Amino acid sequence: MRLLRERITGIDVRIHPDVGDPVDIEIALAWKAPHGLLATFPRLKLICSLGMGVDHLLCDADLPRTVPIARLIDRNMIEQMSEYALYAVLHFHRRFDVYERFQRDRRWQELPLPHTGSRCVGVMGLGANGEDCARKLAALGFKVLGWSRTPKHVAGVECLYGAEDLPRFLGATEILVVALPLTHAPAGILNTRTLSLLPRGSFLVNLARGGLVVEVDLLQALNGGQLAGAFLDVTEQEPLPANNPLWSHPSVRLTPHIAGLTNPQTAVEVIAENIRRLRSGAPLRDLIDNERGY
Amino acid sequence: MRLLRERITGIDVRIHPDVGDPVDIEIALAWKAPHGLLATFPRLKLICSLGMGVDHLLCDADLPRTVPIARLIDRNMIEQMSEYALYAVLHFHRRFDVYERFQRDRRWQELPLPHTGSRCVGVMGLGANGEDCARKLAALGFKVLGWSRTPKHVAGVECLYGAEDLPRFLGATEILVVALPLTHAPAGILNTRTLSLLPRGSFLVNLARGGLVVEVDLLQALNGGQLAGAFLDVTEQEPLPANNPLWSHPSVRLTPHIAGLTNPQTAVEVIAENIRRLRSGAPLRDLIDNERGY
Repeated sequence: MRLLRERITGIDVRIHPDVGDPVDIEIALAWKAPHGLLATFPRLKLICSLGMGVDHLLCDADLPRTVPIARLIDRNMIEQMSEYALYAVLHFHRRFDVYERFQRDRRWQELPLPHTGSRCVGVMGLGANGEDCARKLAALGFKVLGWSRTPKHVAGVECLYGAEDLPRFLGATEILVVALPLTHAPAGILNTRTLSLLPRGSFLVNLARGGLVVEVDLLQALNGGQLAGAFLDVTEQEPLPANNPLWSHPSVRLTPHIAGLTNPQTAVEVIAENIRRLRSGAPLRDLIDNERGY
Repeated sequence: MRLLRERITGIDVRIHPDVGDPVDIEIALAWKAPHGLLATFPRLKLICSLGMGVDHLLCDADLPRTVPIARLIDRNMIEQMSEYALYAVLHFHRRFDVYERFQRDRRWQELPLPHTGSRCVGVMGLGANGEDCARKLAALGFKVLGWSRTPKHVAGVECLYGAEDLPRFLGATEILVVALPLTHAPAGILNTRTLSLLPRGSFLVNLARGGLVVEVDLLQALNGGQLAGAFLDVTEQEPLPANNPLWSHPSVRLTPHIAGLTNPQTAVEVIAENIRRLRSGAPLRDLIDNERGY
């Protein structure tokens, strides 16, 4: 908040619960705010999400529907998410998971290596994250398929879209990268039925939201060999409870929601820019379509 | 060899030790051939290395010095080496090594993440491998420094060279990627003295040759905290003996010389092309300078 005060002269920044008179609040910076809270500010003009996702706002039944909502589109964070995706894809493509086991067993043994150009990586979701990630995977020589709800164009990537294309997309994907925004619509989109459309022995990377994958179905797919591995930055419940079987599953790599971290320095620039635009009456940046949720 | 016969009509391919009359041999395809063997072919016109490196040839005291030597410059293999380097750099940059431990401990904890643009990755060696690797790291947003024996230019990479620049190169490098060819000159180039020039807590990635790093010095640097981690595809002795302490060192990740694998399909194209050129009198490709060794 100090950073914001330095950037916008005269701004009055208040931190919940010490918000003073609710009538004073014109802009809310929110990350998982208590449901109902935003509805208590009658003069609210802008809600800024403190993360890329806005599901934490949209699931508030009392969210004021007429107030514009801005996502935090931070180039740094997008770069970080792509770094994570590249690492996880290479982890499975180059079988670093198996070589880790070999090291523990002091075993010096080469594994067969499929040609990068014939390895199909499917990127699900072609928003800011998914697009950057698909481009970078294509630049490394992978055969990249993209899938989104609406048609998109990404250079070097074959883009499919809509429910109709989903079976073809999944049927060709050997390493699936989930970069979808979580909205009411696709929660649980990866379940026993859709995971079974992937070729047997595929890999899953989820750096979007835990709720997109039905965890019991994921575990079943891993245990039955339909999936050969999963790299997860997000889980249905976070922090992941200590007794959750994902922690110790031999085919699962877990990280604590760190694929893209909000950097206060760069985030504050993005938010300050929108506040300046609001004050000067200029069009706001990175607003979501409240109906579609992104 | 079947692949080679399919590509060059009328070629007579013989496999050691069944070479017949040594006078017949005009071209030798070699990978770690017995020392002295190549000197027994009086009409030898070309030696093709079956790997990127040629140290296995140059260390043969009886190598016929006037016969041209071609390296196997295979784009696929270069892509693979870069994949390996990116994975290993991201492994340390994003502290996947620490998150692995956290997962074992069922610990959900975020670590600080330095900005990619301020993370300095040093690529040692700017041959075909090092250059591709440096370019791809720069494309991900890293601050990339390159170092080579002779001056080079790589877009987006600050290139230093020669013994004089080595201290400045190492002094700025947080993650060091070794992509040097091994020749008589730089064997053991990474030792207690040079490793001590790196900032404390740096990381080492070696995908070139084990002989470039003095292993006892590496272990000492790891145990003393000068190095915070090492990712090694190559070791002084390969296969690595079962009692070698690198296998179980908590800060070491090991793979069995798989960063770049010779693919028979693509390798044979490269070799066949040189054989065609030799027959037609055209200039040969990818010859090494026998004095410099690359």
